[in-house]
Amino acid sequence: MRSARNSIEITEVIEWRDGEQHRVSDYLAGEEPLEIRIGATPLTVTMRTPGHDLELAAGFLLTEGILERPEQLAGVRTVTNEKTGKQNIIEAKLTDSEYDSEQMQRNFFAASSCGICGKTSIESIRQRGLRELNPGFRVSPEVLCSLSDKMRGDQAAFEKTGGLHAAGLFTPAGELLEVREDIGRHNAVDKIVGWAVLNKRLPLAEHILLVSGRGGFEIAQKAIAAGIPVVASVSAPSSLAVRLARELRLTLVGFLRGSRFVIYSGAERVA
Amino acid sequence: MRSARNSIEITEVIEWRDGEQHRVSDYLAGEEPLEIRIGATPLTVTMRTPGHDLELAAGFLLTEGILERPEQLAGVRTVTNEKTGKQNIIEAKLTDSEYDSEQMQRNFFAASSCGICGKTSIESIRQRGLRELNPGFRVSPEVLCSLSDKMRGDQAAFEKTGGLHAAGLFTPAGELLEVREDIGRHNAVDKIVGWAVLNKRLPLAEHILLVSGRGGFEIAQKAIAAGIPVVASVSAPSSLAVRLARELRLTLVGFLRGSRFVIYSGAERVA
Repeated sequence: MRSARNSIEITEVIEWRDGEQHRVSDYLAGEEPLEIRIGATPLTVTMRTPGHDLELAAGFLLTEGILERPEQLAGVRTVTNEKTGKQNIIEAKLTDSEYDSEQMQRNFFAASSCGICGKTSIESIRQRGLRELNPGFRVSPEVLCSLSDKMRGDQAAFEKTGGLHAAGLFTPAGELLEVREDIGRHNAVDKIVGWAVLNKRLPLAEHILLVSGRGGFEIAQKAIAAGIPVVASVSAPSSLAVRLARELRLTLVGFLRGSRFVIYSGAERVA
Repeated sequence: MRSARNSIEITEVIEWRDGEQHRVSDYLAGEEPLEIRIGATPLTVTMRTPGHDLELAAGFLLTEGILERPEQLAGVRTVTNEKTGKQNIIEAKLTDSEYDSEQMQRNFFAASSCGICGKTSIESIRQRGLRELNPGFRVSPEVLCSLSDKMRGDQAAFEKTGGLHAAGLFTPAGELLEVREDIGRHNAVDKIVGWAVLNKRLPLAEHILLVSGRGGFEIAQKAIAAGIPVVASVSAPSSLAVRLARELRLTLVGFLRGSRFVIYSGAERVA
């Protein structure tokens, strides 16, 4: 297999169609592990589609609550893996000189394992002291219905591979600001939020987030951490995503297709 | 929201359609955290759709390499969460009396973080000493093309929620043995493998696994751990899944739709 771009690989495959087989070239969505470190200490490894790795790391640190405020991030840089020569390690530097990486790592593992019931998961997000999501934000049904087409027009890798999820960030008027693709839907959202962290655009209080596929708990959680008041998805949300959205007053829209959508929470922002 | 079944919840939503809004009832895919313990020691928490939790735990322990052999599992049982009254803890008992849970937990975290490059991830799977996948297994193109419809006919929750992934286990003649649904595709596969663990059906050397959506690295890894020689998915596999499949001689089929599919690896088994 050879790499066309970071996020796509080309390979030889056999296609069966109506009883006949052909040898053809096919595009594959890239999937590689990325290690995120705080200083020199490994924090986590995530499977992601290569590309926008600095954004992914910055977004992950914010949406998972490792950073309490975006200003705590002093910088992120790519480190070359000595064993493989690949650029698959991101080192984050925090401003806090008192920072204890071992303590943070323990907290991180504790946090990712704390959610033994939905209530506890929601409670732990609440306890992060997040700001209230913009109560005055409004979006029209017409703008909502226009978002999918706009995002699809910008999804380069998806068209080729059929294997990538996308997340898009929009203004209230429906203008597409940024789109990111990844084999993991949550990574695509982290890349969007990381873009906002690195460009000092947080909180995203005047923005709409659109994700391909389902709107699960993780997506709602990450949007709330970034201050995004409206999340729309092309498919269904999960029960826990709806509970979280209702408790923290996030507007959650699902089944956004053509001229139809469903509002699961925060209907007052759709007008 | 009230629970219809474990895996589905019903809730009131607002539907917009062609400019008009209606209040309707909607079904949501259930999503709740499940804690898996070895004895009394917590190992991990996974977000899953409730139902078949014992299978999920048994399958997870096998496919993630916590169990080296299925016989190491002495039993699994549900424990009621004292704080919430929910049945969201599974306790696994291992036969090995020498078992050191702290050691295993350290290994588990190390293993889930080891995959800093694709090669290392594949190497670590190799090192588990898995048996060679059945080289003599054959499946016909006609049988492959028939699988999706059979699985869809058995997907009760998906039809209602549009939000669940499914995994189905088939015989070489295309007979559907079991189907499991979950908000996480990897969980659906773990439930299938766990069914085999608990029913002493491993290795699944004469079976085909079909998954909805994409065939990523995790899916290929889990199938290999269960000895399944053929994995098919409705959408595209990832680059790392293809590399793993080619190295360990797993037959990997993607884009299984109608009378068309693509073979990414192990074409000799399709005949």
